[in-house]
Amino acid sequence: VSTIENLQIKLAARPIGMPKRSDWEFAHSVAREPEDGEALVKVLYLSLDPAMRGWMNEGRSYIPPVRIGDPMRAGGVGIVVASKSPAVAEGDYVYGTLDIQQYATLKAAGLTKVDPKVAPLTVYLNVLGMPGMTAYFGLLDVGRAVAGNTVVVSGAAGAVGMTVGQIARIKGCRVVGIAGGPEKCAYVRDELGFDAAIDYKSEDLNGALREHCPNGIDVYFDNVGGATLDACLARLAMHARVVICGAISQYNNTTAVTGPSNYLSLLVNRATMQGMVVFDYAKRYPEAVREMAGWIAEGKLKSREDVVKGIDTFPETLLKLFRGENFGKLVLEVAAP
Amino acid sequence: VSTIENLQIKLAARPIGMPKRSDWEFAHSVAREPEDGEALVKVLYLSLDPAMRGWMNEGRSYIPPVRIGDPMRAGGVGIVVASKSPAVAEGDYVYGTLDIQQYATLKAAGLTKVDPKVAPLTVYLNVLGMPGMTAYFGLLDVGRAVAGNTVVVSGAAGAVGMTVGQIARIKGCRVVGIAGGPEKCAYVRDELGFDAAIDYKSEDLNGALREHCPNGIDVYFDNVGGATLDACLARLAMHARVVICGAISQYNNTTAVTGPSNYLSLLVNRATMQGMVVFDYAKRYPEAVREMAGWIAEGKLKSREDVVKGIDTFPETLLKLFRGENFGKLVLEVAAP
Repeated sequence: VSTIENLQIKLAARPIGMPKRSDWEFAHSVAREPEDGEALVKVLYLSLDPAMRGWMNEGRSYIPPVRIGDPMRAGGVGIVVASKSPAVAEGDYVYGTLDIQQYATLKAAGLTKVDPKVAPLTVYLNVLGMPGMTAYFGLLDVGRAVAGNTVVVSGAAGAVGMTVGQIARIKGCRVVGIAGGPEKCAYVRDELGFDAAIDYKSEDLNGALREHCPNGIDVYFDNVGGATLDACLARLAMHARVVICGAISQYNNTTAVTGPSNYLSLLVNRATMQGMVVFDYAKRYPEAVREMAGWIAEGKLKSREDVVKGIDTFPETLLKLFRGENFGKLVLEVAAP
Repeated sequence: VSTIENLQIKLAARPIGMPKRSDWEFAHSVAREPEDGEALVKVLYLSLDPAMRGWMNEGRSYIPPVRIGDPMRAGGVGIVVASKSPAVAEGDYVYGTLDIQQYATLKAAGLTKVDPKVAPLTVYLNVLGMPGMTAYFGLLDVGRAVAGNTVVVSGAAGAVGMTVGQIARIKGCRVVGIAGGPEKCAYVRDELGFDAAIDYKSEDLNGALREHCPNGIDVYFDNVGGATLDACLARLAMHARVVICGAISQYNNTTAVTGPSNYLSLLVNRATMQGMVVFDYAKRYPEAVREMAGWIAEGKLKSREDVVKGIDTFPETLLKLFRGENFGKLVLEVAAP
């Protein structure tokens, strides 16, 4: 073990605006040997998420920021190469907070075994992972979507958005996705079965929402914030629910976040806007995984990952999220299984 | 009847920004005789409310706008001078949508009898009227305030705010009021028993909220919007509830409403922001009136009205609301009882 070379990507500076390569340090070392209760995991796939931008900032949020000098936090899937815990054995595939590095030495209690026979490993970073859990509990628990509702989701071709829309369809809702560009719109409409898709880059959002949501929006699942949130607020139905999952349009702001001008629509429509963080539902993940795995097996729920190879590409690959260039869940392949 | 002179104040123009006298027409006519099912009511006291500004605008809201040429909508208390309905009799005191005029001829079914022996007539426009109902259902039903919660209310010396704070105290909450000026702050703290009061005109709101809400805000009852809403959002406790009742700081804007920049605090704190309109609770008013009348009788709940005499002063008196000059419920006295 003590001879395994490890490349770690550590936070070197707190970025202002868009992160750049020099905000991280590429550190070569030797993988740490596991102590009692720990395992050494070879990292295969890492999840790249919009939330990472928030973790780079100083200050209070829903989890502590990454400290300067620490490996950049990331969830990932890997294979156990050494274990000093009865919980996992060499050869097991596991999910955990593996961070942006080639090898992770960490407490085995924080690892979850995953089965590549049930679904490809990358699906555990997507539909059967955090984005899937976020979509499931955000839509059904926070958004209280029920059959007959009109559901609108932004970031519709992103990891969370495409699952939100598919679950809503399965539950009998009318689903309108908002995405950037004709290719993404065609995909969510034609491949994923959304009732309509709006290209926010080329269409008038207010007009398109009027057309596709003639009776207003019952549930708006917001991943983007900014002008899209405002347009959806202006189109709420009575007693609508707005799920605040993220605000990718605002994460790299160097000025204050733009608040939603149309928030008084909440008053007019007796509507609710509620924030969510998926970790709160940890105890209920198995229930969601069971139902979602069933839908995958029945062919009702699709998982699409945008896999980029090479740990060294991390800084540039992460930026695809903020440029809207990813198509499906963005995954960094550190090593092939 | 047909010889009773009536002064009506009718909407003449849709204001841009602050309303001015010329936005209304002062029309002299003769009171209309009641038809079957109607009553003729002599107007005594009229309720002046921030919401009136919204009713003057064109466009969709929670109730239709006042039409140009129609008497300005207002709730009020009066005495029946003639009736062609078994529901009310000459000499009855009644509450209803009497509008800004000296005499109202309207369907008796829309009137509610009030008893000046239970409370002074003006209290039926305040604690036992719409502001009281708004405070009661907004705080307890939408805000779900319970004993031990920290409750913050803006517009604390206004009609809704002072009742919100008093009910919260009765229910065992810690209450912080935000008001403008030392006199209003002293009143809500010393006379109404709020735990603390913040003068937003002279104090640093963020610092004062940190001081007075060391464990964060569980319920924020918002009457004002703007910078105050943002400061309170920044101080939410986990699972906080924000009640959007109004946004008086924004009603006379000639530019877009300022949205709350700190709305992502809803996400971090898994908090909820919900709009309310009191009319939705109409069926439950009797339950609230019963409980509130009991508190008044026990001396636990005070009602304070700011009574201005003379229907002719209506345009200027209304503006007191938007200048923060009223102290308690703003009431226009059209005639003494």
